[in-house]
Amino acid sequence: MTFYIAGLGLNEESLTKEIIEVINKSSKVYIETYTVEYPYDLKVFEKSIGKKLLSLDRGAVESEKFLEEAKKKEVTLLVYGSPLFATTHYSLILKCIKEKIPYKVLQNASIKDAVGAIGLQIYKYGKTTSMPTWNTVKNHQPDSFMEIIKENINNKSHTLLLIDIGLGFEDSLRQIKESFDKHGVNEKVVVCSRMGTKEEKMYYGMIEELIEKEVKNPYCYVIPAPEESIHFMEKEALEMIKV
Amino acid sequence: MTFYIAGLGLNEESLTKEIIEVINKSSKVYIETYTVEYPYDLKVFEKSIGKKLLSLDRGAVESEKFLEEAKKKEVTLLVYGSPLFATTHYSLILKCIKEKIPYKVLQNASIKDAVGAIGLQIYKYGKTTSMPTWNTVKNHQPDSFMEIIKENINNKSHTLLLIDIGLGFEDSLRQIKESFDKHGVNEKVVVCSRMGTKEEKMYYGMIEELIEKEVKNPYCYVIPAPEESIHFMEKEALEMIKV
Repeated sequence: MTFYIAGLGLNEESLTKEIIEVINKSSKVYIETYTVEYPYDLKVFEKSIGKKLLSLDRGAVESEKFLEEAKKKEVTLLVYGSPLFATTHYSLILKCIKEKIPYKVLQNASIKDAVGAIGLQIYKYGKTTSMPTWNTVKNHQPDSFMEIIKENINNKSHTLLLIDIGLGFEDSLRQIKESFDKHGVNEKVVVCSRMGTKEEKMYYGMIEELIEKEVKNPYCYVIPAPEESIHFMEKEALEMIKV
Repeated sequence: MTFYIAGLGLNEESLTKEIIEVINKSSKVYIETYTVEYPYDLKVFEKSIGKKLLSLDRGAVESEKFLEEAKKKEVTLLVYGSPLFATTHYSLILKCIKEKIPYKVLQNASIKDAVGAIGLQIYKYGKTTSMPTWNTVKNHQPDSFMEIIKENINNKSHTLLLIDIGLGFEDSLRQIKESFDKHGVNEKVVVCSRMGTKEEKMYYGMIEELIEKEVKNPYCYVIPAPEESIHFMEKEALEMIKV
């Protein structure tokens, strides 16, 4: 009779002791699959944990039906990365509080921890933003993420730019290039691929220099603070991943 | 012949499968003890992992001597929370790159993940800052953290305010009160204690309302964005932890 919301961390070996214990004692184990493209095979992962995983899409998470089950059973929802990164997931906690369903949050590493590997100071990240997929046919090219990027540049902050699920690397580069040009932003960026996994890759350069890199999903970008405002150790770190 | 820097996550059960494996195969396992007061007994923890833990203070971490050992052996450095949150820890990676010492970063949850439990959107946190202990005898009362807090308030961002190790809760409240008064800031704050552990506590209110709460180390504060700029679900969440 508890709802557990647990973070999977970033790779197939990053389950914590407490999460493994909770999975083992749960009657049902759900896994959230609509906010991320997993960097590992979920069938193999399912086998390795020895428990049937029930996949949940956006509709199912938002319907919150599985919370009803938690009134009678131990139910776990597994989320890639950190369990409360997405707002939708916190709304499950609110429902538990209101309906007096016992719940427990089991933390794990998120992309915000993993980008530490770039060497830019975690303290100096400003607001996070995300880029949707443009629909060029309908001429729908929303670029409100640029407001956050510009605000962060003005405040000498780094920006973590997350990418819509399904948006391929080359298309995302094109969208960023167009947006930067339109808004007069001329910064170098870091592209980060499969952070926290064995296939982790990081490249720093001008957008047009990144095009030749092979970047696998999931990936994201970091736009560093303007060069003149960053610490010498951060500069040294960026040198290490320069294309 | 690898240097592993591994995050402990937030409680004694939050070691990941990959970190347990790495600890088991390491000849030496160090633990960093100068940036945090652990919310659990390190002697008990040491017994539970079945490996001798060698405690490292600031001087020892900065001397980087243990990296020499990693040229010949498997050496692990355990860090509370996320391994690269502190800048000093990234400097170890830089040294590994320069001296061609193989290294691996093993991610885990940090306080930035754990504050997700407050219900304020992770996306909307601005730069993080930290408050040092004031020396009232020498009249040394640095409050540069207020610049970050004010910047974040102006940008409608939340602020994570970390607390100097050793600074007690009542003293920290007094320092915040003085700093807020001096800078004309009149926001409510959240105090978060032992986040990600069984003893996790969160309280939201005016500074003077928090004084009666029993708050254990480690703890931190979150200063929410101004009320008029926050999402209704965030407001609902804050209501749940209001004192």
